[in-house]
Amino acid sequence: MRLAELSARSGLSIATIKYYLRVGLVPPGTMQSSTWASYYDSHLRRLRLVRALTDVAGLSLEEVRRVVDAVDASGSDHQARGAAQWPLSPALAREPSAASVERVEELLSRHSWELATNSPHRRTLAAALDTLEVLDFVATDEVLDAYAQALEAVAEIEVARVAAEAEPIVAAERLVVGTLLYEPVLLTLRRMAHEAVSARP
Amino acid sequence: MRLAELSARSGLSIATIKYYLRVGLVPPGTMQSSTWASYYDSHLRRLRLVRALTDVAGLSLEEVRRVVDAVDASGSDHQARGAAQWPLSPALAREPSAASVERVEELLSRHSWELATNSPHRRTLAAALDTLEVLDFVATDEVLDAYAQALEAVAEIEVARVAAEAEPIVAAERLVVGTLLYEPVLLTLRRMAHEAVSARP
Repeated sequence: MRLAELSARSGLSIATIKYYLRVGLVPPGTMQSSTWASYYDSHLRRLRLVRALTDVAGLSLEEVRRVVDAVDASGSDHQARGAAQWPLSPALAREPSAASVERVEELLSRHSWELATNSPHRRTLAAALDTLEVLDFVATDEVLDAYAQALEAVAEIEVARVAAEAEPIVAAERLVVGTLLYEPVLLTLRRMAHEAVSARP
Repeated sequence: MRLAELSARSGLSIATIKYYLRVGLVPPGTMQSSTWASYYDSHLRRLRLVRALTDVAGLSLEEVRRVVDAVDASGSDHQARGAAQWPLSPALAREPSAASVERVEELLSRHSWELATNSPHRRTLAAALDTLEVLDFVATDEVLDAYAQALEAVAEIEVARVAAEAEPIVAAERLVVGTLLYEPVLLTLRRMAHEAVSARP
């Protein structure tokens, strides 16, 4: 398809698409002459990914680039797919305490979750546990285990759904975007559950 | 206790506390003379609540005020406790579609969740479903039901924990702050679960 059609189908202006092409967030099209290039469904998908990451997840273009690079790197590797989400982990203001890092390892071990040694989620969770402790809201193992068990059940459904995608790169894209897009749903359902459970006699 | 001790124990400067007193986020102390007032544990708790809402949850002072007012209003009423979280629901850019509103009602009905008719979470969830549909990530009932079931199990533990608090106002405070503070834990555990499940052979 030509640039105009890509713009119409992605909902992004031609100027925006040209900008994304220039900074490399979207791979170049195939030059058909010196004046125009053709684009494919893969370009459309990539534009939708960038749009979801900026508009819905509120990521900066620098953060989007890291996610996109991770998706590309993980493309054909089933195990690396989880790593595509690493760039979503926030930068930490300070190093987590050794005690919280240890609690995270014990949690992973209790649930037989095998994460890469350098997965940033370990430190993110440990830092969150530190914050809770400072604010006198210590997370007990009982609560953490309940969360972990509940979320594993959900993750199994979500991962199975994207695994049905024929192309590995599409699966990686959908897992990353799905993780972000479903966060508001998850948080709202949690508040609903609190209200419903609180209202019971 | 005097203002200086309140400052030391809350970790907030005297100037900040005076500002919160002036705008009414914290109730006044008991005047002991024309120059000093005494403060109680309830003041300390309220300051910690305001601090958690601003620093950790990133709320504006206007949003903090709405949460604090809701906590005060819900104080002694078990059923109204869930309503203390209503101010956390974001303002919507547009009205949700009738179809999504209907899907939310069906979901509530399937799980026997009795929410107040005017609970803002209904519209928040419906709007989130609309966004997912526009971006071609339609949330199936299977996924929504898995989330709802998982989160109900967690909410039961969380509500039972705060219900053990002797004072209803403390329970309301802890439920609201706990909801906010545990959101990063929940989202990080979800990403961990995705990585762990993706890595399985």
